[in-house]
Amino acid sequence: MNQLNVCLTPALIPLYNVEDYIVVIIDIFRATSSICYGIGNGAEAIIPVSQVEECAAYREKGFKYLLAAERDGQVVEGFDFGNSPFSYTSEKVWSKTIVLTTTNGTHALHLSRQAKKIVIGSFLNLTSLCNWLKKQDENILLLCSGWKNNFNLEDTLFAGAVVEQLKDIPFMLDDAAIAANDLYQIGKDDINEYLKKTSHSERLKKLGIEKDIEFCLQLDLTTAIPVLEGDKLVKLS
Amino acid sequence: MNQLNVCLTPALIPLYNVEDYIVVIIDIFRATSSICYGIGNGAEAIIPVSQVEECAAYREKGFKYLLAAERDGQVVEGFDFGNSPFSYTSEKVWSKTIVLTTTNGTHALHLSRQAKKIVIGSFLNLTSLCNWLKKQDENILLLCSGWKNNFNLEDTLFAGAVVEQLKDIPFMLDDAAIAANDLYQIGKDDINEYLKKTSHSERLKKLGIEKDIEFCLQLDLTTAIPVLEGDKLVKLS
Repeated sequence: MNQLNVCLTPALIPLYNVEDYIVVIIDIFRATSSICYGIGNGAEAIIPVSQVEECAAYREKGFKYLLAAERDGQVVEGFDFGNSPFSYTSEKVWSKTIVLTTTNGTHALHLSRQAKKIVIGSFLNLTSLCNWLKKQDENILLLCSGWKNNFNLEDTLFAGAVVEQLKDIPFMLDDAAIAANDLYQIGKDDINEYLKKTSHSERLKKLGIEKDIEFCLQLDLTTAIPVLEGDKLVKLS
Repeated sequence: MNQLNVCLTPALIPLYNVEDYIVVIIDIFRATSSICYGIGNGAEAIIPVSQVEECAAYREKGFKYLLAAERDGQVVEGFDFGNSPFSYTSEKVWSKTIVLTTTNGTHALHLSRQAKKIVIGSFLNLTSLCNWLKKQDENILLLCSGWKNNFNLEDTLFAGAVVEQLKDIPFMLDDAAIAANDLYQIGKDDINEYLKKTSHSERLKKLGIEKDIEFCLQLDLTTAIPVLEGDKLVKLS
């Protein structure tokens, strides 16, 4: 029987043999939501990088590249945009390649390099992602990017939503997958409301991104599944 | 406002400044349950050690010491007993010092050495522990020992039970504390039944310790709070 496991923070990745898994990267607020939306809107590719300097280096390669860099929720000066999904509309990203630096999501992605396959998950592509996962007959690791390497509720709730959709397949769940699914049961009827009681709420209010949050919690806006090929995230075909 | 935080596994301890906290060590199955029961039953002290060899070295110091060593749930040959709470009755432990080696609990304890104070929690001393915590006016970190450095449900549920009892005090909760409390809400009416669906259930059935589990889930068998003094856990006075 295949495993369906949830890694609650990138700090716990060393406990898994990622090479035995398809890894789903989750960073609901907001990197993986924006990536799914951008790829769904026709971005040719999204290149995740971990350093702002690495991102800036693409400036010299021409206007094909859009540069997205954010630290602690703010667009870094001189860059085209940050992590807000509203920057990833088709009129902005169609046929472009976006170079993306993020605080948490890129970190999780780099740690999973050895996985069988790396795909990107968010509420915006939930059902499409789950339908694809159901067909793979592989171990699945849902990797929550968390907040500064620690647990956060929004990524865990999304992991629980995936566990929910995969329930008709006989997977072995670990305790974290069971907990994530139970938390999803509590929050699912109004995830935004549920998350308001969390620490993220204060954290994100300070960043002034309440609209982004509401956007990121929409279900199934796109069927696109971003997948890592080499150094680029592209649309899974 | 003081913090009430939950550290879901010892692997996440580096994310906290433990010196700012009273740390509660949690290893429900079974180390911290047995420690609470043993101290409650009049053990003079319990010395936690991380290596079986370290434990064995106390043999030469005389019969005052009882040696408890367990690896992967089994009593190590030549030792007096392991982690089963049934070994910690007053007829066995009264006025004795127990040298205890455990897989997960000792590890968590050693990682928190710099804390303001380290106390031991379990369902067996839940209310007494919480009443004491309420009076401290300090940041509190509930440290789940977990299973092989990863998340487990039983320790998290207990953390949620503590959060529940401290609700009338205005603490800042982190996301893990909120999640732990929500999971406790789901499981509290029959914790043993709730935990049966988890991975631990299979894991512990293999160890043949179902009776221990039932024992460890009893509420408030003792008012004793074990506290670390130097290298020894003794009864908080």
